Amino acid sequence: MQLAIVLFDRVTALDAVGPYEILSRVPGIETVFVGERTGPVRTDTGALALTADKTFAEVERPDIVLVPGGPGQTPQMDNPVLLDWLRTADTTSTWTTSVCTGSLLLAAAGLLKGRKATSHWLALNFLTGFEVEATGERVVFDGRYVTAAGVSSGIDMGLALAGRIAGDRAAQSIQLLTEYDPQPPYDAGAPHKAPAELVAEFRANTRHPQH
Amino acid sequence: MQLAIVLFDRVTALDAVGPYEILSRVPGIETVFVGERTGPVRTDTGALALTADKTFAEVERPDIVLVPGGPGQTPQMDNPVLLDWLRTADTTSTWTTSVCTGSLLLAAAGLLKGRKATSHWLALNFLTGFEVEATGERVVFDGRYVTAAGVSSGIDMGLALAGRIAGDRAAQSIQLLTEYDPQPPYDAGAPHKAPAELVAEFRANTRHPQH
Repeated sequence: MQLAIVLFDRVTALDAVGPYEILSRVPGIETVFVGERTGPVRTDTGALALTADKTFAEVERPDIVLVPGGPGQTPQMDNPVLLDWLRTADTTSTWTTSVCTGSLLLAAAGLLKGRKATSHWLALNFLTGFEVEATGERVVFDGRYVTAAGVSSGIDMGLALAGRIAGDRAAQSIQLLTEYDPQPPYDAGAPHKAPAELVAEFRANTRHPQH
Repeated sequence: MQLAIVLFDRVTALDAVGPYEILSRVPGIETVFVGERTGPVRTDTGALALTADKTFAEVERPDIVLVPGGPGQTPQMDNPVLLDWLRTADTTSTWTTSVCTGSLLLAAAGLLKGRKATSHWLALNFLTGFEVEATGERVVFDGRYVTAAGVSSGIDMGLALAGRIAGDRAAQSIQLLTEYDPQPPYDAGAPHKAPAELVAEFRANTRHPQH
């Protein structure tokens, strides 16, 4: 079973690495990072590069497609190479998935029309623009389409998907190995929990889907 | 304020990328990934490489040192280049930190002797061997030494440290941006919560610090 994780310039690293760390440990899964070109791909902060080992052309029939987000997804929404690859890969994939604004790329490729999906909380209204029923849920399954909310939510999605693919025990084993027993020191990880003025500030500064 | 994140062959990606995603967003922090050589560094699964942009020799006085773990830390415990760099960097750092078995590297460098620290749950006994008071806590502050438990715990450490460095509001802002409102679909992320037979299986298979 092949998992293809898409990389593009200015991707948000944790969008990709969170679910990678979970799903790559599912027995029988072979993981490949794929991009328009092979080699290092710079993430959104500029301080880190993740390596694409294969080009889109080299990964023809992945079983699982995972599309991360990040501020770099905006230009990709008009990239025919990426969108065509997503459409083709989706015709044979078992699971087509995204984290954060990666769902906007799936939507731009026409794959989420009429479906329920989620995205980063600041990007939900852009998803609606693609005739998607945007929910604020952290992980949304709609048939074989699985979307996760912002950045860190890809870990929760990875575990949920690992359970569907390999069973509860395999997923629990990976959760234990990665010691995923979260204890955030603050409770500000969602717009309905964070201080209202912080939420308002982010909303005021978001004119286009940034994350 | 410079944050130096150490990379080495067979590092666990999320150990580094979790806290990176949080701390690199603290206002005024410049993040650099550092290794024995510059260029792509393969992680433990073999499916991903993270890029080191600077060599140890090029990063002389980082304000924050962050050491991830992973199965690749075992050979590094005898690597004089890495251990010497850790000792030198620690003489001027404001914070010296680790995730997962990264604490074994700090311990091997002699930096945790007599201190309280944590590590991956399967590695706590190895920490004790270095005259460290090993706790099973998820994040441990002992003066300017901050250690986190296994893999995903680096996200919690990153947020706690962000709060100490930049204040609660800055940390909450990063938590909201990264939508860190964890909702694990299982509750097996710690040895006292996971099915007992899973825990026993991992313990039986661990003869040396693997993660």
